[in-house]
Amino acid sequence: MRDVAVIGIGMTKFGELWEKSYRDLFVEAAKAAMLDSGADNLDSMYVGCMSGGLFVGQEHIGSLMADYLGVAPIPATRVESACASGGASLRAAFIEVASGISDIVLAGGVEKMTDVDGGMATYALATAADAEYEGFHGATFPGLYAMIANAHMHKYGTTPEMLAHVAVKNHDNGSLNPYAQFPAKISVDAVLNSVMVADPLHILDCSPVTDGAAAVVLAPLEIAAKLNAKPIRILSTGMATDSIALHDREEITHLNAVSVATTRALEMAGLTIGDIDFAEVHDCFTIAELCVLEAMGVYQPGKAGPAAMRGETARDGSLPVNPSGGLKSKGHPVGATGIAQAYEIVKQLRGEAENGRQLKDVKRAIAQNMGGSGGSSVVTVFEA
Amino acid sequence: MRDVAVIGIGMTKFGELWEKSYRDLFVEAAKAAMLDSGADNLDSMYVGCMSGGLFVGQEHIGSLMADYLGVAPIPATRVESACASGGASLRAAFIEVASGISDIVLAGGVEKMTDVDGGMATYALATAADAEYEGFHGATFPGLYAMIANAHMHKYGTTPEMLAHVAVKNHDNGSLNPYAQFPAKISVDAVLNSVMVADPLHILDCSPVTDGAAAVVLAPLEIAAKLNAKPIRILSTGMATDSIALHDREEITHLNAVSVATTRALEMAGLTIGDIDFAEVHDCFTIAELCVLEAMGVYQPGKAGPAAMRGETARDGSLPVNPSGGLKSKGHPVGATGIAQAYEIVKQLRGEAENGRQLKDVKRAIAQNMGGSGGSSVVTVFEA
Repeated sequence: MRDVAVIGIGMTKFGELWEKSYRDLFVEAAKAAMLDSGADNLDSMYVGCMSGGLFVGQEHIGSLMADYLGVAPIPATRVESACASGGASLRAAFIEVASGISDIVLAGGVEKMTDVDGGMATYALATAADAEYEGFHGATFPGLYAMIANAHMHKYGTTPEMLAHVAVKNHDNGSLNPYAQFPAKISVDAVLNSVMVADPLHILDCSPVTDGAAAVVLAPLEIAAKLNAKPIRILSTGMATDSIALHDREEITHLNAVSVATTRALEMAGLTIGDIDFAEVHDCFTIAELCVLEAMGVYQPGKAGPAAMRGETARDGSLPVNPSGGLKSKGHPVGATGIAQAYEIVKQLRGEAENGRQLKDVKRAIAQNMGGSGGSSVVTVFEA
Repeated sequence: MRDVAVIGIGMTKFGELWEKSYRDLFVEAAKAAMLDSGADNLDSMYVGCMSGGLFVGQEHIGSLMADYLGVAPIPATRVESACASGGASLRAAFIEVASGISDIVLAGGVEKMTDVDGGMATYALATAADAEYEGFHGATFPGLYAMIANAHMHKYGTTPEMLAHVAVKNHDNGSLNPYAQFPAKISVDAVLNSVMVADPLHILDCSPVTDGAAAVVLAPLEIAAKLNAKPIRILSTGMATDSIALHDREEITHLNAVSVATTRALEMAGLTIGDIDFAEVHDCFTIAELCVLEAMGVYQPGKAGPAAMRGETARDGSLPVNPSGGLKSKGHPVGATGIAQAYEIVKQLRGEAENGRQLKDVKRAIAQNMGGSGGSSVVTVFEA
């Protein structure tokens, strides 16, 4: 296998982008990544998207985007793993470059979620759960994560204040990100007094419904060094699955797919979690960030909440988490999220993060992207 | 890159399978392929599916199928390229094994199309076209292929009788396939007198709406030889895209994605089309088989129709095409079709095709899978 590096990155602003179409969003991000890369053309591309069918009435998404990007007849494949579709796109592109079959490969992700009404968006998102055992019975994602949160509170004494600290920290970071959907700073009181969506999750514990796209261009390391002044290596990829329905898991507070994917990625990179300088993780709900950090081995089970209260995951903490603002503040266009994580990591490792959110002396980072309530996870390790 | 071989194959019967669920279908095919392979477990898997969202209200399909197959936490990714989703799944698995990142990888495909009413199935299939420039204006696939057929007839003198001969030949082959949805033999008169769907395409020029799944297990050649008495090598893969909308093409009778994908696959294999003993191609409509064979370089433009009349693509012809019965007779569960093509090719190259449809002295074969009206195509070359 060949060594692989990121040579270009691009993304759209995240938000309710009613003036831009599905294809416009992808093309904007992909063009930006291609321009940034120094490469004249692509050999192949992947598009992460969760549900073009339900959100915009469009499948055949790889071909559509290659066509509108003007790069047909290159191979173009859409990959899907619910909200981890972006991570799966990055993984597929990494494997294709590593294999030697292609050199310059774009990994993109896109979702256009606000062109349908809220009920349809909730239904579309619920197809990431087990349709027959969860979706058809009315389970939605706030409800599923609320069950995880209640179990975590019961088992470990996690409190609504601890959850709120995750949201406050991520909005603090997102307030410095020009691409964030909700860059406003918020307070713990604001979270605790915001409307309850699914007890104990208030609306400010939840990531939003978002339109947006992101893209990165990968190349073999030897070519990357010629095209880009500061290529960022991808050391490894790990992916894992779990039972898609919550009720089939031994312990719903433990995200086993995250744990296995992290172990695989760190082993492939020859590193331990202690070698990592910062992380972008899948905070679709505040409780998710805590469970993810525990599954990744950053904290023992039950210890991530108190750590959030102590500020250990803030930009000046021992392991900064979600310097981009995370899904919570930056927004969560589900198919794009895994690529937007890579975008932030490359910015930080290049030393180019805007508005004072640049982390100091960072060399290695990890991205963790998750599908559904933890039915899948993709973990990627980067090095400057 | 490592050499790759197919070590196991499995598929369900194709048809209106109301007694079997989406996940049941996939698990049945995948288990059969695993049993056939001699491998105890999988390292990774891919699921080709066009629209779980619109057909069965389910996304997160890789994870769902890994869960119900009992192989979680292995990595599992759903790939989509409309009706070429199965071919894209096979390609992704091939690249993953070739790269060295995984050894035993399952490539599956599935679609459950008959659980919705006919209008919804037509709408779901139309999302393989350009939603904004074709779908929203009422274009459906019989209509799009009818435009191609009319242009082909106008330009080359192709006749309804020539189209009918494709259907008759494929039903003749499908009558010998125990997995075929419509194994009945038909006559040219029956085709020409069947109800008109979109002039000049009668209903017997059209492939059906189908439930079904298929799966193959891949391994590096050195491991394959230990697990399976007769591994079938995959020599190469080629994929290409084209404008997704018909009106953007220079010449609608020329399927450029098929042409480019075939050239890439043959070059990678170090072969010419003359080295191929038989083919499974994407006959979603009778006109498609003719345009595909011309784009692949089997025939000059306009010459595939007369060749069909002369029987050159029959089982005893110079290049047998669709010995399985093709999409026309075997059925077309869109996400499974590309894998079902591989299934037939492996059966034939092993010398195990049932009911007297076994071809004699066949060593090399090509599979051509297509998305939409030719917006994407995946071509794979196999060798016994």
